[in-house]
Amino acid sequence: MRAMYFSNGTAEAVELPIPEPGPGEALVRVLSAGICNTDIELFSGYYGFAGVAGHEFVGRVARCPDAPAREGLRIVADINCGCGTCRFCLAGNRRHCAARRVIGIVDRPGAFAEYLTVPIANLYPVPDDLGDREAVFAEPLAAALEIGQQIHIKGSDAVAVLGDGKLGLLCALGLRHHNPRLTLIGRHEAKLALAAAQGVRTVHCPAGNEDRILPERRGTFDLVIEATGRPEGLAQAIELTRPEGTVALKTTSRQPSTLNLAKVVVDEISLVGSRCGDMQLALDTLASGRLDVRPLTQAVYPFTDFPRAFEAARAPGALKVLLDFGG
Amino acid sequence: MRAMYFSNGTAEAVELPIPEPGPGEALVRVLSAGICNTDIELFSGYYGFAGVAGHEFVGRVARCPDAPAREGLRIVADINCGCGTCRFCLAGNRRHCAARRVIGIVDRPGAFAEYLTVPIANLYPVPDDLGDREAVFAEPLAAALEIGQQIHIKGSDAVAVLGDGKLGLLCALGLRHHNPRLTLIGRHEAKLALAAAQGVRTVHCPAGNEDRILPERRGTFDLVIEATGRPEGLAQAIELTRPEGTVALKTTSRQPSTLNLAKVVVDEISLVGSRCGDMQLALDTLASGRLDVRPLTQAVYPFTDFPRAFEAARAPGALKVLLDFGG
Repeated sequence: MRAMYFSNGTAEAVELPIPEPGPGEALVRVLSAGICNTDIELFSGYYGFAGVAGHEFVGRVARCPDAPAREGLRIVADINCGCGTCRFCLAGNRRHCAARRVIGIVDRPGAFAEYLTVPIANLYPVPDDLGDREAVFAEPLAAALEIGQQIHIKGSDAVAVLGDGKLGLLCALGLRHHNPRLTLIGRHEAKLALAAAQGVRTVHCPAGNEDRILPERRGTFDLVIEATGRPEGLAQAIELTRPEGTVALKTTSRQPSTLNLAKVVVDEISLVGSRCGDMQLALDTLASGRLDVRPLTQAVYPFTDFPRAFEAARAPGALKVLLDFGG
Repeated sequence: MRAMYFSNGTAEAVELPIPEPGPGEALVRVLSAGICNTDIELFSGYYGFAGVAGHEFVGRVARCPDAPAREGLRIVADINCGCGTCRFCLAGNRRHCAARRVIGIVDRPGAFAEYLTVPIANLYPVPDDLGDREAVFAEPLAAALEIGQQIHIKGSDAVAVLGDGKLGLLCALGLRHHNPRLTLIGRHEAKLALAAAQGVRTVHCPAGNEDRILPERRGTFDLVIEATGRPEGLAQAIELTRPEGTVALKTTSRQPSTLNLAKVVVDEISLVGSRCGDMQLALDTLASGRLDVRPLTQAVYPFTDFPRAFEAARAPGALKVLLDFGG
């Protein structure tokens, strides 16, 4: 099978054998995959990664010896593969298993390949009326919706999403159903317009204008969702948060952040780290039609055009780039 | 009256007029005051402070034109003086009023003086059977107990207090009533012994031995209370916290902290800033006899000996130094 192999800042098309599903695993043929900023970081050497990346995907179960009834199902997958025996796994929380492998990120080949294996327990069937190019957003949408599972977002809260990148847009489109007045603050008018077209309030704050625009909002938000992807985003988010308010932190940066934590202490602010979420919730939300993720796709390339697709995804300000596997 | 005036790293004994209580204020004669690390920071120029510091005190109401029945009461005080009209003040939460003055810290003279004025609303009568040298701990104990008001500490939680300084000891002694298995981790055997004598579990981790001792505990605590007073304390606290666990952050450092926030995001850890607390809760807790704060006092000096007292308080590893006003 054809696969893209990342190593030391290069991505090479290689021919690999189709993997053999182990006990409790399914072989999945990839239909569509999305390129995430994490893939770009992995490409650049984050986690010392070498291998097949790709963790946003829709596929079809090609072979499943331990559960043949699953064969033929169209699925998305929880990318966190737990040990199955620790206290997190036993509580159904494989996302925090200390020994977890993570599809396309940690110790498990990902979806930038024609086939991959997935634990049966991690498969989520996709409803028939949900297209591949919507279902492929299930993984990042689950990560966006996770904030509403960790934090009780009330209708009366003043909520801001800081950052209008792919994840910020999904946070705004997904979480405004908890809070219709949610405000998306971003640098890019065109991206903000995508959210505004679906009824999200937006504030345009061009790069370098934070000191002019954001002070009016300083200390006014009950909850600020930090999705800038920039190390300095957290300091801005803290500035926007009211005393006793909360910052949800989505940015994982390789660079350490320098923070003046005195304001966090004096204002008794809570910072809540947030990563992956519930795939079933994401699928149900997509199927409900409460948000339309399709405008977030900037381009679709055939998988055979991976280098061009990856270049497009790496361009500053790029929206979602999808890979089509011609399935 | 005699007062100590801090300015540019000096503390000078000065004669000031006895202040006149304004509308809604009481004149308080100081009986006992404690020296806090914040006072040492103010002395060194934190907040650009110049004036009379001192925010841990017991006093007696000397004059109270607007509520004469209060005259003669022995009191402690909430140091946060709110505007009285903002939404925080109207909700009874003057600690987070944006326009607040803070006794001995921000725009209001403190208790390193024979007299000070205090808003009547901020006075808390001290029970007769509670001595001055115990009641003077009400303010820092309130700050320690605040964590239990912000975070639901369950008996089944694994809880650590990191840091065996004055605040760490108060956190351990105060919060173990929520959680009898709470563990105090500190550098100083003698200080840990003070907590152990009251039934607190302790772990001795001498400076520089964190890499040897703490890894066994890494990722095991549901809640870590960071009270080290050191900028690097938060990173250690995060290391000790389990996925989806919580760090309560007490250290206010003038220096910015450098943090790798990726672990906070990936492990979905919550950081909760924590400052001042409920004075009534602190007085009730002291009066209940559930903890004995007296062993935390290292020395008592007459107020006239302020320079010696302050020198003792500034010595590395010092416990609480009290000032006695001979009242």
